[in-house]
This record gives sequence, C-alpha cells and structure tokens, in this order.
Amino acid sequence: MSDARVSATPVSDAPAPPPAPPAGVLESCLYADDLAAAERFYADVLGLEPFARVAGRHVFFRCGAGVFLVFDPAVTAVAPGSVGGVAVPPHGARGPGHVAFAIDDAALDGWRTRLGMHGIPIEAEIAWPRGGRSLYVRDPAGNSVELASPRIWGLPER
Amino acid sequence: MSDARVSATPVSDAPAPPPAPPAGVLESCLYADDLAAAERFYADVLGLEPFARVAGRHVFFRCGAGVFLVFDPAVTAVAPGSVGGVAVPPHGARGPGHVAFAIDDAALDGWRTRLGMHGIPIEAEIAWPRGGRSLYVRDPAGNSVELASPRIWGLPER
Repeated sequence: MSDARVSATPVSDAPAPPPAPPAGVLESCLYADDLAAAERFYADVLGLEPFARVAGRHVFFRCGAGVFLVFDPAVTAVAPGSVGGVAVPPHGARGPGHVAFAIDDAALDGWRTRLGMHGIPIEAEIAWPRGGRSLYVRDPAGNSVELASPRIWGLPER
Repeated sequence: MSDARVSATPVSDAPAPPPAPPAGVLESCLYADDLAAAERFYADVLGLEPFARVAGRHVFFRCGAGVFLVFDPAVTAVAPGSVGGVAVPPHGARGPGHVAFAIDDAALDGWRTRLGMHGIPIEAEIAWPRGGRSLYVRDPAGNSVELASPRIWGLPER
C-alpha cells in the first residue's frame, strides 16, 4: 500500500535534493602587475609547476588537486575574454591578498633554508596553538604567502 | 676507494635537498566588508561549513582538504593580530577577487536550480573546450565565484 502511495506521487513534484557541497577549492587566485616576477617566485622558489601563461594577462600553476592562478588585475578586471561566445566574468583585486600552501611540518626547516638561499625574507614564523607551524613571506607583488602544515587547521598532512 | 672518499665528505657540507613542492593550497581567501552577508552566502547557499568567526574580522569555512577564509580587509590590512607574541602579517585586498569551488559536472543542473531558488543570478555558464562546465555567480561583496568541474583543468572529479 505504501508503495502504491509513493509511486502515485510524480517524482517531478518532489523538491530536488540539494546538491552536495563543493568538494574543495579548485582555483585559488592572487593578483600581480609583474607576471614574470610572479612566475619566477612561484615556480623557481616555491616549486609550483606553471602550465599556462598569456603574457600580460596570467600565469597558472598546478598545485595538488587544484590550480593556483595569478592574474594581472589591470587586464582581467576590464577585458577578461570569452569562451565559446560567453564573456568570462571579470575580476581583479588590488592590494595584498593571501594564500597558504600545504607543506609538511617536518619540511619547514628545509623551506626556511630554501627561502634564505633565494634571498626571500621570512616575515613571520608562527607556532599555532593546536600544533603545526607557518612561515610567511611576500611574493614580488606584496601578497602574503604562507607555507603551513595542514595541522594548523586540524587537517592531516597530505 | 670511492666509498672512502664519499664517507670522508661530511654530510653537513652536502647541499640540502630542496623540499618537496607544496602538496596543495591550504588556505584560499576572499575579502568582504559585510561578513554576515558573506556567511549567509557561503554557508546557506553554497553549503560550506563555517567553523570560526570573529565578528567584524573574519569568517572561516572548511572546504575539502583545505579552508576558505573571508576577511574584512579594513581590519586585516592594518591590525592582523598576533599569535604567541608574533605579529601575523597583514593582508587585505580591494575589488573583486575570484575563487572556484569543485563540483561534479553531473551536479551542475542541481546547482543552477539551487542558485535560482536563492535568487542568485548566474552571470555566466561556460562549457570549456577540454570538457567540464562552470557556473559563475557573485558573492554579496562582488567577488566572482565559480562552481566548476575539476575536468575543466584535466583533473579528476573528487
């Protein structure tokens, strides 16, 4: 009986279940006027893999399960381009943004050495109350870049 | 002989191997003057889990293997606080930033419905040449927020 009652209700009248929450961040972005300097920093110092660049517009890096994108805001804020005839929504922030990259806590000393070899001053080193540590530096555009163990957020190292 | 020569070289003189590249992005950030409106959008519409907030300063969300952070730049650009006596480096950008959250391509229709139910206009929908689609909306602060399949970057869905 209950089966008949259920099947008498058209499926299309039932509210659609909400979609699952996003599985993670796919694209993280920062902005820089000097993209060549940004690429040297993120590729040569941090070791990220650049995989796409358009001179004067952007340089993109692979990073774990997502991508890290650096845009020149002077371009993407006004002329973001189009794909298949659809305008890509513009964006472009000014002033120092922030990103943190996941490293193992055990690699922190190695990172301090590597940053020093590249002449990158360490602006701060923080030991967080719940465990894990962070190193903070600036990219050439002045963005605050953190190298941190996921433990600072109670997350497992990757 | 070669063994003796190698062992005669103190290990500490050998250059340290470079640390492994970052395993991924741990913290992705955007900025908003109205943090309550930002929380309603990211929690109630997008379904992210808020786990920390300081009124007038920030609201933080868990998102997959990392965290997504929204700051009021008027505060974090000038008075970022300190941890264990160490000043947290300031940051705070102005103007529209960008983030993309990972969804399954199969969930895109459900997201279009959900955004409509919340009265959020879809600014663009793009089908990318390599596969996968994106929906673009604006958060209350005007940041460009994308919901996209990782396939747009040749990455597996999560």
